[in-house]
Amino acid sequence: MSEFDLIQRHLTGLGCARGDVIVDVGDDCALLQVPADRELAVSIDTLVSGVHFLPETAPEGLGHKSLAVGLSDLAAVGAEPAWATLALTLPEPDEDWLQAFARGFAELARHEDVRLVGGDLTRGPLCISVQVHGFVPKGHALRRSGARPGDLVCVSGALGDAGLALQHVQRGEPLGDYLRQRLERPTPRVTLGEVLRGVATAAIDLSDGLASDLGHILTASGYGARIQLDRLPLADQVAGEVAASSDWSLPLSAGDDYELCFTIPKSHLAELSVLAAAAGCPLTQIGEIESRPGLRWMTAEGHQWHSERTGYDHFAR
Amino acid sequence: MSEFDLIQRHLTGLGCARGDVIVDVGDDCALLQVPADRELAVSIDTLVSGVHFLPETAPEGLGHKSLAVGLSDLAAVGAEPAWATLALTLPEPDEDWLQAFARGFAELARHEDVRLVGGDLTRGPLCISVQVHGFVPKGHALRRSGARPGDLVCVSGALGDAGLALQHVQRGEPLGDYLRQRLERPTPRVTLGEVLRGVATAAIDLSDGLASDLGHILTASGYGARIQLDRLPLADQVAGEVAASSDWSLPLSAGDDYELCFTIPKSHLAELSVLAAAAGCPLTQIGEIESRPGLRWMTAEGHQWHSERTGYDHFAR
Repeated sequence: MSEFDLIQRHLTGLGCARGDVIVDVGDDCALLQVPADRELAVSIDTLVSGVHFLPETAPEGLGHKSLAVGLSDLAAVGAEPAWATLALTLPEPDEDWLQAFARGFAELARHEDVRLVGGDLTRGPLCISVQVHGFVPKGHALRRSGARPGDLVCVSGALGDAGLALQHVQRGEPLGDYLRQRLERPTPRVTLGEVLRGVATAAIDLSDGLASDLGHILTASGYGARIQLDRLPLADQVAGEVAASSDWSLPLSAGDDYELCFTIPKSHLAELSVLAAAAGCPLTQIGEIESRPGLRWMTAEGHQWHSERTGYDHFAR
Repeated sequence: MSEFDLIQRHLTGLGCARGDVIVDVGDDCALLQVPADRELAVSIDTLVSGVHFLPETAPEGLGHKSLAVGLSDLAAVGAEPAWATLALTLPEPDEDWLQAFARGFAELARHEDVRLVGGDLTRGPLCISVQVHGFVPKGHALRRSGARPGDLVCVSGALGDAGLALQHVQRGEPLGDYLRQRLERPTPRVTLGEVLRGVATAAIDLSDGLASDLGHILTASGYGARIQLDRLPLADQVAGEVAASSDWSLPLSAGDDYELCFTIPKSHLAELSVLAAAAGCPLTQIGEIESRPGLRWMTAEGHQWHSERTGYDHFAR
């Protein structure tokens, strides 16, 4: 089975048929049509075996996740997903692996109206790069830089689930359905991102953890924030871990949750539940942007601690 | 030095400043503007250490080559290059390596009016994926599928240089400047690709070797071809190797030359030298498209042999 045959059999025609795809997999380039009134949003992300996932991870979940992390970036700028490309490096031409990977990828792609339009299949240590492409009305993308003092800091979903799931896996402990889903099949908050355009002043997706990613918003916007730890949305298992250990690193810096963190003017506070209903996910106000730079964490007892950025960093550990 | 610092220091602002880049490196997505009368052409390619290049390869050349292979795909569809993204996986945060890589990448990017607009830097076995993005007037991209019987088959530059250079490297023999340049710093035929729009009936870039890549044109177009071996443009060293060994595999299937192979109607034969002058590279007519499927190689003595596709294939060896 050659490289060309493998692509033809497993990686052609994945996802949704789209009228804006003029040529996809099989020529030197894909040829694509961007609507005239839209900007093109692109993001590329890599998952490396042994770094981003354990080598024995089921390929179907990897197919899902490798697309989901990119769609999460599109969500963070409020873009509507359109196309993806895939650079896949595999140690062996394992057809069962490839078929399962493609199934996971295609299922999410169809769900989010995405077409796989091109790629490269090479031999080497397992490594998956996916680039996503989406559209956003000209001048209306969400950015990291628009947060202003007094804005409310909000997050979607729950924090720390993927980090706790990874701990369980690393310890060889069984994973319940909820935590497995959160680690292996994260939900990119695409609808939320689109709903937040024109409402949020800044947004980012939580790939490296709240402390690091909110830190990027603060750096880009030039302000600080105060966060109420007792307001953080935590699943029972994560809340239990935090209570037992008095260690907040799971919800603050474990990463991989792919929720959105965003800021909205206080005047929009009442709309939060309407936005949550439109987006189909819980939204929680967890703190406020302040003029003073830095990130201050407030405990329920009113104590305050200041943090350095402590999210996941590939070259810092 | 963190992942963010490394990106900030070495991978930000590479290449040409462009007015169509609204946001580049540093937000969740790059935001880009495609001209309304253009299609977007995209291609992603991966170079893996130990597969596509030797681990000790100088990083500056890798920076050049990782962009050049993508630009060669844009050339093959006649697109004007615009942007690139980079997914770079590195075993260690080696700043000297990164600086040299970025220098090689940026030099070619500036030369071809390309901006690096985004990327991902991760830890793992050395692996480089680059996606290129370019523009082509609507409906005027070169394709693989337009070759017709009677069309002339042409190639740019010379064939087999990169393959011979790799043989020298693998045997530990010294490389002269010409062969080193051809292996490590291939020239993507971008200008030629643009010049061929409206002239060529089909085109492809020679990444896997003439037999394999011309085979793609024949498959996509539904015809065959007859190629005159004595017409193949060969540098003296390659011609010497072929003469000494009676083995044509260097020019026919070694790959990595990144020349263009294209077909033109016979009526354009006289224009070939004009096209070559406009493109700044030699062009050679090497054969003709025929109705009968298959690829027939004709020796100078008038003998004929038929070939299977024999180019580089990641999973076939």
